[in-house]
Amino acid sequence: MGALHAGHASLLGRAVAECDPVVVSIFVNPLQFGPDEDLDAYPRDVDRDLAVIAGRGASLVFAPSPEEMFPLPAVTTVAVGALAERLEGASRPGHFAGVATVVAKLFNIVGPCRAYFGDKDFQQLAVVRRMVSDLSFPVEVVGCPIVREPNGLALSSRNRYLGPAERDAAPVLHRALLEAATLAATMVAAGQRDAGLVRARLAQRIDAEPLAELDYAEVVDATSLDPVDLLAGDLRLLVAARFGSARLIDNVGITVPGGVPVDAVRREVPRSGRDDA
Amino acid sequence: MGALHAGHASLLGRAVAECDPVVVSIFVNPLQFGPDEDLDAYPRDVDRDLAVIAGRGASLVFAPSPEEMFPLPAVTTVAVGALAERLEGASRPGHFAGVATVVAKLFNIVGPCRAYFGDKDFQQLAVVRRMVSDLSFPVEVVGCPIVREPNGLALSSRNRYLGPAERDAAPVLHRALLEAATLAATMVAAGQRDAGLVRARLAQRIDAEPLAELDYAEVVDATSLDPVDLLAGDLRLLVAARFGSARLIDNVGITVPGGVPVDAVRREVPRSGRDDA
Repeated sequence: MGALHAGHASLLGRAVAECDPVVVSIFVNPLQFGPDEDLDAYPRDVDRDLAVIAGRGASLVFAPSPEEMFPLPAVTTVAVGALAERLEGASRPGHFAGVATVVAKLFNIVGPCRAYFGDKDFQQLAVVRRMVSDLSFPVEVVGCPIVREPNGLALSSRNRYLGPAERDAAPVLHRALLEAATLAATMVAAGQRDAGLVRARLAQRIDAEPLAELDYAEVVDATSLDPVDLLAGDLRLLVAARFGSARLIDNVGITVPGGVPVDAVRREVPRSGRDDA
Repeated sequence: MGALHAGHASLLGRAVAECDPVVVSIFVNPLQFGPDEDLDAYPRDVDRDLAVIAGRGASLVFAPSPEEMFPLPAVTTVAVGALAERLEGASRPGHFAGVATVVAKLFNIVGPCRAYFGDKDFQQLAVVRRMVSDLSFPVEVVGCPIVREPNGLALSSRNRYLGPAERDAAPVLHRALLEAATLAATMVAAGQRDAGLVRARLAQRIDAEPLAELDYAEVVDATSLDPVDLLAGDLRLLVAARFGSARLIDNVGITVPGGVPVDAVRREVPRSGRDDA
């Protein structure tokens, strides 16, 4: 989607380490924006994007115009069922059908063996994985760790919409996720499994930040994204909240292997020195 | 879909003449059957299918089980918009989404450069073409002429549902199509362009057959399948009717190049000696 930052650069680094050739696609996909969303305002600066990826080993940049991608109106839609209708899908109807449709088209045009997506848009990653599985695309989908500011804020092109006070407040998302994950670990160690307590703590910590307007705070199965009642298996804590005009999302993973304590929060990549994870 | 006949064999012959290797897919696709349709009754006889294609040059037969195709429930759906909702789509809600979804999956598994479909399921061909264009599948879709019995009946696996009297009555579809196409040619030669008259003749001829229960008779643009008011450009006459428990479809193409007379009915392949086209 362009507006490339160090999170995208980390995907490229991983791809270059594992594949040759490597193609970077840059396309602000109109299909995944709702009528009231920020399609027109979405940042587009291909020169800046090229500067971000310069020297990082990409073989090719595929940056088509909307007219090249859609010479005819796109009447074909790839929908990924209930998985795409909850969480972000509930807040943004049609969003994931727009994502899946364009990802399918990019796969057909570029023909990758592997495709690298960030964990930040965790539901997007789950939707793409399910589409690839259901439609047997010959593509291995690789999820890559979230890259964060030193204060814990997950990198996102939408962070530029944050005012100074909002920017100071936004790391509450990551702090809340870490605290909820720690609570989960403590509970599991003590033999407690009520996911509702973890969910409540997550919401409570974000609600305590006056500049945050919580959209959702969930504890879900990491594959199906179904909400869970019990802390067991491979889980994801997911949050979405508004800070002024910016709607931000974040997540962390926890694993509760058959009855033993939480594995600790999964590895994430700090953008610079300090590792908040 | 299996239940192979001389129509399928003609697709294979064309593919073998133009491609190497050639893969035949045989899969009774559950996604394209409605809840009240004949999925369970649909004829399945792989040995008979293999006998039909034996010696015709196929390199490989891909005949997966439903469990191999769908180890998980298929939650991903490929829908092709309004094109898929009229005509057959109106009579069979969800049918073309089921077709498009499985064709996309077969394309991803088999990886063909070219895919051969019969003109008999003309709307299916149009839906697949549009899906391929919208999603940029790297596949050339080749439409192949309808193969007919000497009496004009288009070959179809569903012809086996016809009783003796119905089998005698069913060629009315092709006769009506030829008569309507001839009317169109005559009208255009006389400077008349009202597609409604052609549509009316088509319906009238089929309605005159007591064993036929007309579903639709249309004159449409050959690409969009939009109904037309004027006889101009590349058109298709499409019909569907029930004969007892068998629902049959048929079509012929006509071309009206910018103001000059109809080009004549398009080439079709007779199964044996007599050429009804």
